[in-house]
Amino acid sequence: MKWVGFLLLAVASMAGILAYMPHAPGQSDGDSSPIYGVKIPAGYRDWKLIAVDHLLLSGKSDQLRAQLGNDIAIKAFKEGTLPFPDGAIIAAIHWTRVPSEANNKVLDIPFPGTQSFLIGSRVNVQFMVKDSKKYAATGGWGFADFKDGKPGDKALHETCFPCHTPAKDHDYIFTHYAP
Amino acid sequence: MKWVGFLLLAVASMAGILAYMPHAPGQSDGDSSPIYGVKIPAGYRDWKLIAVDHLLLSGKSDQLRAQLGNDIAIKAFKEGTLPFPDGAIIAAIHWTRVPSEANNKVLDIPFPGTQSFLIGSRVNVQFMVKDSKKYAATGGWGFADFKDGKPGDKALHETCFPCHTPAKDHDYIFTHYAP
Repeated sequence: MKWVGFLLLAVASMAGILAYMPHAPGQSDGDSSPIYGVKIPAGYRDWKLIAVDHLLLSGKSDQLRAQLGNDIAIKAFKEGTLPFPDGAIIAAIHWTRVPSEANNKVLDIPFPGTQSFLIGSRVNVQFMVKDSKKYAATGGWGFADFKDGKPGDKALHETCFPCHTPAKDHDYIFTHYAP
Repeated sequence: MKWVGFLLLAVASMAGILAYMPHAPGQSDGDSSPIYGVKIPAGYRDWKLIAVDHLLLSGKSDQLRAQLGNDIAIKAFKEGTLPFPDGAIIAAIHWTRVPSEANNKVLDIPFPGTQSFLIGSRVNVQFMVKDSKKYAATGGWGFADFKDGKPGDKALHETCFPCHTPAKDHDYIFTHYAP
């Protein structure tokens, strides 16, 4: 009985170790990003707001966007700490931007000519994870792009770092904290 | 000496009581909204994100907007609880929407024709505070609109409830929780 208990404990421990083993850069297991091995961080939707923006991508894909940060990232944004400390994670949620006929009808009475645009559906969510050692080759940041919970392919993830390079003076982060 | 101590304590207690006395609806003391007596809730900028939107007000004032909620409001949004429970507070932050020439330059290479719009400056912040007894006459909600930390006037606050009335079926809240 004791022996069975020990065996179960050993198996459980091994499973735990395997579950928590970080992926080496370049690996992907289906739920983490290629090249960087970044998974969707638990509870990120409840992180604090950094800023919002609007992007008309290639003049076609029309997106409302919000950037959220974990506590380490938010503290760094508020205090202007650069480079961002290890452990900082930024989530960028992108939704379609759609006109709201219902809102326009209501708002046209007090505010004639008003055009209201709301969120349609989720397009994707992107993450930047700061680990200055693990991701030394890409400015200390690991990148990830998920659509419907699945990471994009390697080719997509090869575009992340070059696209963020112009923001090098702000530690590769375009977003600034909204007042 | 004992008597002086007691007197000081009594004065301090009275000052404390006065400082924490809630305002009756209709009163405003300079840092709370007229009609409703709502003050800026401490720490609201760190509340969780409900949604974002874009409003071209009267076809002129161009705004990116975010709605944040305290824990009671967020829980109600996630669980679809209607009406919202007492204690729920929603903050709506409005910023100007401005084109980012810097971003457009960077993004035009991978994504030709892309137009990026960021936050310019803070326009105002509005709050809706649920207290079904105190604000029974206005659907259970107290309203507030602050610009640079100062509440708008009575005339402005008289427009809040009528404007929210079309959203009566969603407890006077236009915003829905973003996925």
